[in-house]
Amino acid sequence: MQTMKFAMPTKIFFGKNCIREHHDIFTLGKKALLVTGRHSAKINGSQDDVEAVLRGNHIPYAVFNEVDSNPDIPTVYKGAAAAKAEGADFIIAIGGGSPMDAAKGIALLACQDIAENDLFSGTYAEKVLPMIHIPTTSGTGSEVTPYSILSNHLAQTKSTIATPLIFPAYALLDPAYQKKLPVSITVNTALDALSHNIESALSIKINPLIGQIAQSGIKQIGECLPALAEGGFTEEIRAKLMYGSLAGGLCIAHTGTNIVHSLGYSLTYFRNIDHGRANALTIASYLHFIAAGAPEKVSSILSAMQFNNIEQFRQYIDQILGKKEDFTVSELQKYTQIALKAKNINTSLIAPDESAVMGFYTDSLLR
Amino acid sequence: MQTMKFAMPTKIFFGKNCIREHHDIFTLGKKALLVTGRHSAKINGSQDDVEAVLRGNHIPYAVFNEVDSNPDIPTVYKGAAAAKAEGADFIIAIGGGSPMDAAKGIALLACQDIAENDLFSGTYAEKVLPMIHIPTTSGTGSEVTPYSILSNHLAQTKSTIATPLIFPAYALLDPAYQKKLPVSITVNTALDALSHNIESALSIKINPLIGQIAQSGIKQIGECLPALAEGGFTEEIRAKLMYGSLAGGLCIAHTGTNIVHSLGYSLTYFRNIDHGRANALTIASYLHFIAAGAPEKVSSILSAMQFNNIEQFRQYIDQILGKKEDFTVSELQKYTQIALKAKNINTSLIAPDESAVMGFYTDSLLR
Repeated sequence: MQTMKFAMPTKIFFGKNCIREHHDIFTLGKKALLVTGRHSAKINGSQDDVEAVLRGNHIPYAVFNEVDSNPDIPTVYKGAAAAKAEGADFIIAIGGGSPMDAAKGIALLACQDIAENDLFSGTYAEKVLPMIHIPTTSGTGSEVTPYSILSNHLAQTKSTIATPLIFPAYALLDPAYQKKLPVSITVNTALDALSHNIESALSIKINPLIGQIAQSGIKQIGECLPALAEGGFTEEIRAKLMYGSLAGGLCIAHTGTNIVHSLGYSLTYFRNIDHGRANALTIASYLHFIAAGAPEKVSSILSAMQFNNIEQFRQYIDQILGKKEDFTVSELQKYTQIALKAKNINTSLIAPDESAVMGFYTDSLLR
Repeated sequence: MQTMKFAMPTKIFFGKNCIREHHDIFTLGKKALLVTGRHSAKINGSQDDVEAVLRGNHIPYAVFNEVDSNPDIPTVYKGAAAAKAEGADFIIAIGGGSPMDAAKGIALLACQDIAENDLFSGTYAEKVLPMIHIPTTSGTGSEVTPYSILSNHLAQTKSTIATPLIFPAYALLDPAYQKKLPVSITVNTALDALSHNIESALSIKINPLIGQIAQSGIKQIGECLPALAEGGFTEEIRAKLMYGSLAGGLCIAHTGTNIVHSLGYSLTYFRNIDHGRANALTIASYLHFIAAGAPEKVSSILSAMQFNNIEQFRQYIDQILGKKEDFTVSELQKYTQIALKAKNINTSLIAPDESAVMGFYTDSLLR
């Protein structure tokens, strides 16, 4: 057995009504800043529940609801300024990956002055506002990761703040807030979560413990694949997707993502393709590539999803994705150069060279 | 999916040379107290490695090596007095379950005055010396649990200090220290670890995440069962057993143990039967009992160990245990009354009544 590391400082509560049941944890400080998107947390009831609990605890709060999809660097500076102006000493993130990732940057920048050039340096003082994260989609797993992924207009891609400092103190996962989540978001986020589990399972950083969690995430999302294709999201399906998302977060907190995410960032950055969809576009080619060197690993992933082979999986993914976007060869060449510079591209069990990276794009997108 | 909780504040490093590789963490305070048994940590090299790292870090230390098997309450008070007298502000536990469990009590009592009557009350101030745990057997999993289990001469059984305060800050697991661990200790501790995973998998507190970890622990220990019966502990087997022990610890940190441990404590307390052996004596009867109500759960455990049925498992355990101790019916009646008062007896998927508890003993020990 190789070396193994496991560290998960975030306390996790999962289940119906878990916000109200764990009202006692909403006392991490004297004043809270709620970090959220513009609408969804109001619509799905999560923000109301949080505000009710805070009022019950006599904890004042302010709301920063200016986080858009794929939050960028100016957003987190603005949020941090809001936290300071309000005198907030803890943060409650409510929403999908975007508010959660933004909240982590805000929690860091509210406590220390970091120049934009140093934001992704990995070197920070040990000061951060403590956080409670409440995911309302099942995709990112950000509630249990030390990553804040931000659109970086200078680097023309997404960049990552990675530090154990920004692990949330608590993650509260209630699948009920997703009862009315639109099908497209449900599907795209599920594909992201699936990709987290799969990339982690195929990472050089995998270990037996994380491998188990990845396998369980793949299996539970696997059980939802018919529903993702055909619709019909029961409470049970919502819970399984949320478990799969959590499992994926626990996994990438230890292994990071690798090729698929490195490939996907340009698709999102330049073409505004949803993050989960961007991952799904290349995931079958990725499995095909890894299978050449680690066939038994890929087989075990496929069988956890009840597919007999990669072609079956590819057909399923193609069906889910529908008509693909058009790309030119020169676009894909540009994305290849960007992907080759991504930190995580070389942490998959088999490292791709330049032609392999271009191959993922052409195989997936120019068929 | 039911409610789920996951909380593991202990950071875990597993692998060869992990003490020296993670020398930077041996700086939790200004002076360390090493808590260990009388001999083994010196013999297996772990204490030398720790001392070398501390010297390298210029951290002074004292040694409290008076922890015997099944440590009792006076031992932890004595250790706490040593910590205070030495001015130690962090603790390094080295050894099997006994030094680790004692170290937790010492870490607590070194910071707060608790009367013996209140030691198991569960109500403590939030003050404890931070700890690094270095297990040198593969059994207890204590390096990742919030439990300190102590012989309680007043209650005539083992009692448990249970509080998240005593989660170690770090667990460092290097299977190499067990290269020369005697066969009997290897077998007994492995049986304890196996029991942790199995009892957790069959607990009412199990959840999908912990269930995966339990299953992986059972599988990895399962792969060692031939070696446990026949000897021949390769490096790979040692690592698998240590993984199984860690997995068991992660599991019982969330679910606790249940029937088997409740039954075993009297066997250890009154008859000085090794803790792991005490658990193994009743585990087949336990599986038989649970199988009546949850057959698919028991099947999945048996097949993870590659047994076709409970009888095969019972034969294997009987072979490992060899000649059993003699017991009288009146002894077992007394143990039954004590087990019925144990906190954990009713957290198995099926709760036993008095006759069932007596049945476990007679079925296992009077055959």
